[in-house]
Amino acid sequence: MGRTLAEALIASRTEDPVAPGSICRVRVDFAFANDITAPPAIREFRRMGALEVFDRARCAIVPDHFTPPKDIASAEQLKTCRAFAREQGLLFWEPGQCGVEHAFLPEEGYILPGDLVLGADSHSCTGGTLGAFATGVGSTDLAAAWALGEAWLRVPETTRVVYEGTPSPWICGKDLILSLIGRIGVEGARYRALEFHGEALASLDLDDRFTMANMAIEAGGKCGLFPPDRDTLEYVAPRAKRPFKPVQPDRDARYASAETFDASALEPLVALPHLPENVRPAGECAHLTVDQVFIGSCTNGRLRDLEAAARVLKGRRVHEGVRLVVIPASYPVFSEAMKRGWLQTFLDAGAAVCTPSCGPCLGGHLGILAEGERCVATSNRNFVGRMGHPKSEVVLAGPLVAAASAVLGRVADPREVLGDDPAALRREEGC
Amino acid sequence: MGRTLAEALIASRTEDPVAPGSICRVRVDFAFANDITAPPAIREFRRMGALEVFDRARCAIVPDHFTPPKDIASAEQLKTCRAFAREQGLLFWEPGQCGVEHAFLPEEGYILPGDLVLGADSHSCTGGTLGAFATGVGSTDLAAAWALGEAWLRVPETTRVVYEGTPSPWICGKDLILSLIGRIGVEGARYRALEFHGEALASLDLDDRFTMANMAIEAGGKCGLFPPDRDTLEYVAPRAKRPFKPVQPDRDARYASAETFDASALEPLVALPHLPENVRPAGECAHLTVDQVFIGSCTNGRLRDLEAAARVLKGRRVHEGVRLVVIPASYPVFSEAMKRGWLQTFLDAGAAVCTPSCGPCLGGHLGILAEGERCVATSNRNFVGRMGHPKSEVVLAGPLVAAASAVLGRVADPREVLGDDPAALRREEGC
Ligand code: SF4
Ligand code: SF4
Repeated sequence: MGRTLAEALIASRTEDPVAPGSICRVRVDFAFANDITAPPAIREFRRMGALEVFDRARCAIVPDHFTPPKDIASAEQLKTCRAFAREQGLLFWEPGQCGVEHAFLPEEGYILPGDLVLGADSHSCTGGTLGAFATGVGSTDLAAAWALGEAWLRVPETTRVVYEGTPSPWICGKDLILSLIGRIGVEGARYRALEFHGEALASLDLDDRFTMANMAIEAGGKCGLFPPDRDTLEYVAPRAKRPFKPVQPDRDARYASAETFDASALEPLVALPHLPENVRPAGECAHLTVDQVFIGSCTNGRLRDLEAAARVLKGRRVHEGVRLVVIPASYPVFSEAMKRGWLQTFLDAGAAVCTPSCGPCLGGHLGILAEGERCVATSNRNFVGRMGHPKSEVVLAGPLVAAASAVLGRVADPREVLGDDPAALRREEGC
Repeated sequence: MGRTLAEALIASRTEDPVAPGSICRVRVDFAFANDITAPPAIREFRRMGALEVFDRARCAIVPDHFTPPKDIASAEQLKTCRAFAREQGLLFWEPGQCGVEHAFLPEEGYILPGDLVLGADSHSCTGGTLGAFATGVGSTDLAAAWALGEAWLRVPETTRVVYEGTPSPWICGKDLILSLIGRIGVEGARYRALEFHGEALASLDLDDRFTMANMAIEAGGKCGLFPPDRDTLEYVAPRAKRPFKPVQPDRDARYASAETFDASALEPLVALPHLPENVRPAGECAHLTVDQVFIGSCTNGRLRDLEAAARVLKGRRVHEGVRLVVIPASYPVFSEAMKRGWLQTFLDAGAAVCTPSCGPCLGGHLGILAEGERCVATSNRNFVGRMGHPKSEVVLAGPLVAAASAVLGRVADPREVLGDDPAALRREEGC
């Protein structure tokens, strides 16, 4: 019987029999935490009596949530991380030298095709973009992985998701994944692996796939996997920090369920408060005014996202009464976006361009919402109070919709700003 | 009897007799508050029954302290500011579009020679750089100034401060003002105006003067004044938002006291915890390791400061275990520093480059200190707990010392990094 990608990945890292529902002991290729989840993991690590991490080049702490430290409590957490990193010699970067873990680690070649990756953060599923079995775990499981380089995993069932057809240039990864979550709901892939297929993927950037894998958890998924293809290998080749071996699903794999979409029919989408499943076409939500727009996060803070936002904002100005916060997801993205002139575009449009960090995504800092305020955000969760006051609202969207909303001061379809000609998106000069 | 600059400035804005110690009713040219001080000023404004600000082009709210909002409380404050600004039509900018009030307002030509300026923030004395009588007031006085365009002022006595000689290129405004505070102490100019003179000033940038006027309050001064000269007028001419008339002290002015320095003998200085008067040569403090370096604030976050820091950091790397936070003081500074390549230099050195804001200066956000941590900061106050935990320490310094300390991981004289040849500071290419 053929294996899905999730099954094949787990099989490559265990001696146990692999079938949906079975529990396997697996070897871990990479295990990471952030400034919030590392301190409890460090306490667990000590409590277990562990002395050394299993491999200092495969264990990492990425300070990203409340960095540079937003208050004394987060400064203490960061101090704990720094001290442990120095003691163990594991991978660690100062604020400003890394970025949001799920952007920075794959981008810098620490997460690779064929890997089995555990992260002490729910959006660790982002690594599935590169064909790694990557999933979020609690701090205790992470501590065990740091100590032993092993973990126990329940093999998930797999839902095959197929995007047929060629999407219009106005469509990005966010629209594809929102269309899925809108259909199956926030519990629709509970405990399952999502495995993405279809010709639509070929017309998208790798960064679009990161957005999609990142949001697998928003449908309840354990991971969101892309079988590695030529694009994957081209992306990974110049970055890989160690050897890797891509894994593919079998042709005769058995999927628990399947969802198929006609990507050519998709419109730019938003998810209305307060669940990512409340999906609507952006163009139907023009009645929703906005007080803040946030472009960033591990979902949509990469180069492709900033480029899209820059296309919309170039030569335009943020609407009066709108606060635009742009946070490149990582140091390399910040640096490259600066070289390409996009940060200048954002500044000139009236944005606050901030150092790589999770920022306001989970209500941390750098753009928190007051009572009654509404934010269009390119992040992944719009739960009650996610970005601030319990009576604030978050509308999720891709970078084109977010930037258009910043310009018009209300939820907007990017075509309302750029016109109907997709050539406006492809202009290369001076953006 | 001749008038000092403070007396002449007040005389130009009052019908009352002007002498040290007398109380005068003055016309106000410009009155501003920030995101922290505006909400109480707005409450006072309402309580007085005021309906309209006296002149919407001369009243401003600059959101800078906790912006983009760092938490729900600061988001509520910003919402209050926004609503009042919209109601009154007064000057207001979104986060990212302005910067620290004392950097942004003079730089954008809202504070001008001859002005009488009130700001609801103690470092409003910064405006004295341009020959304005600029001083900090409480929120109630500011509300009255917004309502009436008038205020009551006690005419200060004046201390004349003379910097003779030509300082070495390693010396910046911070060293000049620290040498004064080190000599007279943090109460040494209590209620007084400082009036700066001397040939040393001619060899410095206008931005150095901003640093000096800014720290007048750290010696207890009511204001720190520079008689306008050609450099002042060159600076102001392309920026001025309205007509202005420079005011000069009389040649036979009577000063309450005088302090004279030989600027040619000055070394790069620091102020050790926990008072700005604890002044020592940086080169004598090499035993002090650092956990964080902060380059920014209304004291030293301007172009001249970032340029100096970039000279030191170009092609170098922040020391391991040091967090470097760079926050340009305003949007125009951020934008220009980006164009000149300095932000790239900072990124490449491993700094977190943040959006214009007060940041960690007063323990707000973006670089708060944990227990036992030490920070070299280019800001103006190193009181106990100023930047975080009560058991953290702040060492004040200019940008050259701060950048050198980031590279060496301890308090350092810039010559330890750049060598003894000042040509290293003048290199124009590629920095
Ligand atoms: S950007 Fe948001 S979703 Fe991503 S890791 Fe940070 S807080 Fe979590
Ligand atoms: S930078 Fe510091 S001193 Fe200046 S206004 Fe802000 S908090 Fe006050």
